[in-house]
Amino acid sequence: MGVVLNIEKGKRDAASIKDLIDLTSADMGRVNELILSKAGSDVEMIPEVANHLISSGGKRLRPMLTLAAAQMFGFAGENHVRLATSVEFMHTATLLHDDVVDESDLRRGKKTARTIWGNQASVLVGDFLLGQAFRMMVEVGSLEALDILSSAASIIAEGEVMQLAAAKNLDTTEDEHFAVIKAKTAALFSAAAEVGPVIAGASKNDKAALRSYGMNLGLAFQLIDDALDYGGSSKDLGKNVGDDFREGKVTLPVILSYRRGTTAERAFWKSAIEEGKTDDAALEKAVGLMVRHGAIADTIGRASHFGEIARDALAPLEQTPQKSALIDVIDFCISRVV
Amino acid sequence: MGVVLNIEKGKRDAASIKDLIDLTSADMGRVNELILSKAGSDVEMIPEVANHLISSGGKRLRPMLTLAAAQMFGFAGENHVRLATSVEFMHTATLLHDDVVDESDLRRGKKTARTIWGNQASVLVGDFLLGQAFRMMVEVGSLEALDILSSAASIIAEGEVMQLAAAKNLDTTEDEHFAVIKAKTAALFSAAAEVGPVIAGASKNDKAALRSYGMNLGLAFQLIDDALDYGGSSKDLGKNVGDDFREGKVTLPVILSYRRGTTAERAFWKSAIEEGKTDDAALEKAVGLMVRHGAIADTIGRASHFGEIARDALAPLEQTPQKSALIDVIDFCISRVV
Repeated sequence: MGVVLNIEKGKRDAASIKDLIDLTSADMGRVNELILSKAGSDVEMIPEVANHLISSGGKRLRPMLTLAAAQMFGFAGENHVRLATSVEFMHTATLLHDDVVDESDLRRGKKTARTIWGNQASVLVGDFLLGQAFRMMVEVGSLEALDILSSAASIIAEGEVMQLAAAKNLDTTEDEHFAVIKAKTAALFSAAAEVGPVIAGASKNDKAALRSYGMNLGLAFQLIDDALDYGGSSKDLGKNVGDDFREGKVTLPVILSYRRGTTAERAFWKSAIEEGKTDDAALEKAVGLMVRHGAIADTIGRASHFGEIARDALAPLEQTPQKSALIDVIDFCISRVV
Repeated sequence: MGVVLNIEKGKRDAASIKDLIDLTSADMGRVNELILSKAGSDVEMIPEVANHLISSGGKRLRPMLTLAAAQMFGFAGENHVRLATSVEFMHTATLLHDDVVDESDLRRGKKTARTIWGNQASVLVGDFLLGQAFRMMVEVGSLEALDILSSAASIIAEGEVMQLAAAKNLDTTEDEHFAVIKAKTAALFSAAAEVGPVIAGASKNDKAALRSYGMNLGLAFQLIDDALDYGGSSKDLGKNVGDDFREGKVTLPVILSYRRGTTAERAFWKSAIEEGKTDDAALEKAVGLMVRHGAIADTIGRASHFGEIARDALAPLEQTPQKSALIDVIDFCISRVV
């Protein structure tokens, strides 16, 4: 595939999560140890499947959010490491189940666990990691953190079912779509960020700030991800451009193009998304329509909107290296498309 | 299918769980309300899928164990209702995922959720129910109960993976098989029974007694279930006789028959279990071999052994209606094959 879109190229320098990585690097070392230990089992298939995904080069953004958010309020101890690991396990479990639900063959450029070990192992190892996540949270012993993370677990699944129910439905409204991504993606970012101040014993306002930061960052992150699916190269992304298109996913670039399209264009979208006519020519046409209607640029615009809210959520907080690093994350997420 | 085995017929009167049902009936009314409310969601597909399974006529044995075990130690309040509902949700989530893993079309005589709504919905609604289970446990606020139930969640998944890894492996030893059913089935019975005394603030010995009762009852229950798959009628069981056989499951009746068999018989088991030659003639032959080698009778014998341990686990406890009812459950489980 050679479809490449470089929207707003050069408008801003690519931001980086280097500061976040540096600040959390010692703690992340402990998270990585805990990941290996808690994904371990005498049942060999469990660490095999778990490590395949865990070692496949995700950025581990979510656990870094938890660590930085705890550091920001002076937390010292082990529990933020446990919660960060729980968050990563919840995420990994979701990915394992998602691949089964989406029948995906590739993730981050590697074969998915389900193509190697089968759907069965992906479902069950996901369940195991979720169980281990809860055990670690229980070890931490904070009922408030448990409440936040267990609620997120329900909400994520609810969002995934919502997405499934809306599958291939081009009449999905933008509001309905936001409800889906808020649940399936942003809820975990929000919980990951909020449990930091929670275990640090921070104030109600501080907890609300990090919760809002995480939620809005998560929305921006998902929207950019959806934009990337129609612009970028398979090599850069670790996923194929057009994956969402071929799976008939109704993401925001599609929703905007469909709503803004002519009758003939809507017929095209129906044939593609509802009837599965998604060959390379159709993908090229889809991208052309998106460009014509500004659908990708506006998806990025919506993401920037949420990014601004995330930034302002942190505004009242004391200036710390962690705060700066968390703000960089917003720019990093959005600059991924540039 | 007309294969019917009535082993040890008339040896004892069919025991009943009538006392357990009567003792827990008021509380179960509240459990059933809570099930409906917590399986609810604005996402329509969630209550549809959940209620399909929830209303399909399971006995709800596990939540009744939790309720009776809490009552036994004088617990008064709402939290045993919440924990009982959590236990039932954990069980329901496991069934939804199991049907996907086993590719089952029937459960309790009804179409499985996956055949109606697809594997995707079964995986995701299972995840939702598990999340809701944890939220309810968190509401209860007992870290000890949370520890017991979250550990059970991990162990159940571990047992399912163990079973998957051992699939179609006729060299599975009896000990290995016990390890599987202990994890995949007995761990939840054990947790269900133990959290009763835990929230009632009972003594360490009382908690250990109920944990052991549940574990051994669960082992007996699963062994009888495995025996029933080779004797009984589809109508009585709500499942097809020979389901395990056709799925190539290595259950104890198979393990015993294979180990005790002649070279020619082992070749038959290999063709059936490993190569999938499991037509009606093969099933009839399999049952014949089981009878010849006493494999079903001895599976029931093993179940009785665990039943006796469950009974003795409760022996030191004060005589209460709940204790009698829990002992009846052991007899009920075992008498299902009679």
